[in-house]
Amino acid sequence: MYVSEIKVKVRYAETDKMGYCHHGNYAQYFEMGRTELMRDLGISYKAIEDLGVMMPVLELKTKFLMPAYYDDELTIKTSLKDYPGARVKFHYEVFKKDGKRISIAETTLVFVDGKTMKPIKPPVFLLDKVKDLLN
Amino acid sequence: MYVSEIKVKVRYAETDKMGYCHHGNYAQYFEMGRTELMRDLGISYKAIEDLGVMMPVLELKTKFLMPAYYDDELTIKTSLKDYPGARVKFHYEVFKKDGKRISIAETTLVFVDGKTMKPIKPPVFLLDKVKDLLN
Amino acid sequence: MYVSEIKVKVRYAETDKMGYCHHGNYAQYFEMGRTELMRDLGISYKAIEDLGVMMPVLELKTKFLMPAYYDDELTIKTSLKDYPGARVKFHYEVFKKDGKRISIAETTLVFVDGKTMKPIKPPVFLLDKVKDLLN
Amino acid sequence: MYVSEIKVKVRYAETDKMGYCHHGNYAQYFEMGRTELMRDLGISYKAIEDLGVMMPVLELKTKFLMPAYYDDELTIKTSLKDYPGARVKFHYEVFKKDGKRISIAETTLVFVDGKTMKPIKPPVFLLDKVKDLLN
Repeated sequence: MYVSEIKVKVRYAETDKMGYCHHGNYAQYFEMGRTELMRDLGISYKAIEDLGVMMPVLELKTKFLMPAYYDDELTIKTSLKDYPGARVKFHYEVFKKDGKRISIAETTLVFVDGKTMKPIKPPVFLLDKVKDLLN
Repeated sequence: MYVSEIKVKVRYAETDKMGYCHHGNYAQYFEMGRTELMRDLGISYKAIEDLGVMMPVLELKTKFLMPAYYDDELTIKTSLKDYPGARVKFHYEVFKKDGKRISIAETTLVFVDGKTMKPIKPPVFLLDKVKDLLN
Repeated sequence: MYVSEIKVKVRYAETDKMGYCHHGNYAQYFEMGRTELMRDLGISYKAIEDLGVMMPVLELKTKFLMPAYYDDELTIKTSLKDYPGARVKFHYEVFKKDGKRISIAETTLVFVDGKTMKPIKPPVFLLDKVKDLLN
Repeated sequence: MYVSEIKVKVRYAETDKMGYCHHGNYAQYFEMGRTELMRDLGISYKAIEDLGVMMPVLELKTKFLMPAYYDDELTIKTSLKDYPGARVKFHYEVFKKDGKRISIAETTLVFVDGKTMKPIKPPVFLLDKVKDLLN
């Protein structure tokens, strides 16, 4: 298992009339988390797209345990537990500064050919890098 | 079971560089769906909040079966299958104009006191309206 | 001058901790307004992009006269006053249900070649349709 | 004049089908910029709201000189040139990593009483801090 960590500060625009960071924003935080996990691996998600490979999200599951508020600094821990096939699953945990875990989530993405939008095998260089990581 | 239906047109700002309606926007569509389901019941979500009751989202599960694109008109079908307790679960299906189902989802919300943010029983008038509906 | 009109209901996700519809959302409303104005002209913005012409925004000016709140139904009036050159200017007014005007704005867009991203003349069919309209 | 600086990385969700960072996101970047300028002054915007003072945006003017793309690191320079009255004006410049300026903007905000939403004078402690800064 490999864990990557980013910090995100809740934007004013992301709050809702309850004062909560609206739950819809978390999908963006998770996306930022997996971008950075891939960067940790030496893989730029932008470079993958430039190769004509896209990674749309197939499934998103999120539990919201506690709210986050404006200007809270959140830590997003993104982890990769399994070797990717045509699909790849990322796991997320969101923590507040005081260490309280406020959300857990997972997303399943699929590798697709950017032109045909049909599922393909993940690029070899990506698998090689993941192999090093998970061993 | 009661099913409510709304139409949403994908905004340009909601697309991403793949040309897809970004998956993070669906949480907003589901929220709009349950607002209208409640309005169908004669319940304004705004009125519930004015009574000091809030309904944060505890859990969100979404499957993305096919992408939606800019200017696509989507139909969001929101359904309520079970009588609400402290928690209430909504189910969603998203369809394109050609009838293809592109997403299924469910959210679990909790009734909380707007001041203490502690779970409470749902307002009686709301339960009465749901009872009529589900029978 | 030609005026087009759309209705938008403020989404919960669009509110902020003041309870206001966050001012950042208005750019999306204006974009929806000009999409519909063009549709009124018989022009699909999607079709323009399919022709390889894009219309990025060069300038946005907005005045926020009064706040909008969750679930408010807003009317966006979008107008085209001048014949487009390489640039085209749209004007917007936002009204609440009680007729109060809550925002005025204008945006300047430019026609660009989708490949080179360099400014180009607007498509002739578009100019023809606008000519009919403004006369 | 006082200038504050933040870095923002363009999120995937913030791109649109042109591949651009959608122009509507910039309002959020400017808001983040002024939050940090105020923090530089030793003023938490959250603390101001806790005192019952709110600062809605009255006017926003933005020029988009060049597009930003996914994963671009942007520098937002926020400056305060004039001593605030009931209104306060912030100026913004957005730069890419290569030093190119891609946007300039200004926003006018007003101090209001959080209960009555009527304009009020800015809090004295805020004026004192600004005075030190601009001298």
